[in-house]
Amino acid sequence: MQILVTNDDGIHAHGLFVLVQAMKQLGEVHVVAPLVEKSAVGHALTLVDPLRVEKVFHDGVLFGHAVNGTPADCVKLAVNVLLETRPDLVVSGINRGANTGHNIIYSGTVSAATEGAILGIPSLAISLEWRAKLDFQPAAEVALEIARKVVDRGLPEGVLLNVNVPAIPRDRIRGMRVTEQGKGRFVEFFEERIDPRGNAYYWQTGETHIPESVAYVDDTALADGCVSITPIHYDLTARHFLRDLEGWGWGESGSE
Amino acid sequence: MQILVTNDDGIHAHGLFVLVQAMKQLGEVHVVAPLVEKSAVGHALTLVDPLRVEKVFHDGVLFGHAVNGTPADCVKLAVNVLLETRPDLVVSGINRGANTGHNIIYSGTVSAATEGAILGIPSLAISLEWRAKLDFQPAAEVALEIARKVVDRGLPEGVLLNVNVPAIPRDRIRGMRVTEQGKGRFVEFFEERIDPRGNAYYWQTGETHIPESVAYVDDTALADGCVSITPIHYDLTARHFLRDLEGWGWGESGSE
Repeated sequence: MQILVTNDDGIHAHGLFVLVQAMKQLGEVHVVAPLVEKSAVGHALTLVDPLRVEKVFHDGVLFGHAVNGTPADCVKLAVNVLLETRPDLVVSGINRGANTGHNIIYSGTVSAATEGAILGIPSLAISLEWRAKLDFQPAAEVALEIARKVVDRGLPEGVLLNVNVPAIPRDRIRGMRVTEQGKGRFVEFFEERIDPRGNAYYWQTGETHIPESVAYVDDTALADGCVSITPIHYDLTARHFLRDLEGWGWGESGSE
Repeated sequence: MQILVTNDDGIHAHGLFVLVQAMKQLGEVHVVAPLVEKSAVGHALTLVDPLRVEKVFHDGVLFGHAVNGTPADCVKLAVNVLLETRPDLVVSGINRGANTGHNIIYSGTVSAATEGAILGIPSLAISLEWRAKLDFQPAAEVALEIARKVVDRGLPEGVLLNVNVPAIPRDRIRGMRVTEQGKGRFVEFFEERIDPRGNAYYWQTGETHIPESVAYVDDTALADGCVSITPIHYDLTARHFLRDLEGWGWGESGSE
């Protein structure tokens, strides 16, 4: 069992280290992760600049490969170039902060797992609800439990699991809940400042607004103290609107 | 009618200029676009660095605002800070190269329109099939025609239109076809090189593989000489797998 572990917080992030330790119980772990934090890079690929790879050692033992690219780059480079055998599983995380609701479209953690799924490898993304002081251990145990099931049962083509873990002790987690992506969203705010030369610049910040609390969505599961497991895919077609849109009178020309 | 026009090829791209000229027939156009090319940035937000804005003039007349950020940043900054009134429409493009199949998850052009939809504004992304020598005029006319319909009829909450135009003269375009996102995908290839100091680096490149040719998907519409109009959304839930996944025996604890 070959497991590729990556993240978007960078190869030195503690959440990655804890995840790696847990995944070693399941198989041989290969770490390929961004050299520096790549949060909110979304599903970016680095095509304009060359990618470089650096070996990272812990106490003289190879821990993994750091790449000057995005999480999606890391997965592609790992599978195509760095790993001798194709991984059986891609696990991305543990992210500092939940990836739920609309926010998942910005998530580098999710994009790495998406890339794994595109390459036909069972993949999951693991994120831990944000707290000032985070204990990644419960989330790592959850990740291992879910990874075992994924390895046993497989996933349908093009589907990956987006897992979010509440920031509470393991014995207080009430269980695992299969959910849909909710409608929570990042509401941005721009703070204008003036630099010493008199020019304006803006810091983008914001907070997540959660408009709903129905049991079957991701953010509600977390609020209820449950692990949220959302099966997601990268087919963005809004099928519920196809028929209506066809009725807008586009019409292909008579030559069809 | 206030129209926000943006892109991911940068404010100096010719495709943006041609689109702006066309959209002026529909209303007052505001341009807020990346300062430099941001292709394949996906749905990134700039949170770690400050955003700066620069006015761009054409022949002494204000053309628009350039931002040192991503297409998604541009839309957020435009709506929150730069525009005096909220836009009625967001149009992103005209991209050099189609955004079809799996590739749309990497697309900055699509992400800008997605951001507009998240902000509750009717939005469309326009991309032109790639050729060495591109004529953007037919795509601009198509964009105007579709934009008029969108303004007339509106779009459902959370839905945007991903429009792709074949690179053929206007009178050879056979019509418009409502499509689903296809399964065409970017198959990457890494070229290893050695720098003058003896260190390896990698160029990521690749090509699009299209595994299917069913009439109702985006890439087939282009191949048939039709404009492809795909309604997309940012709800990634893989609903077809929810029930199966629930059957994996997760079980919330008895306290539920």
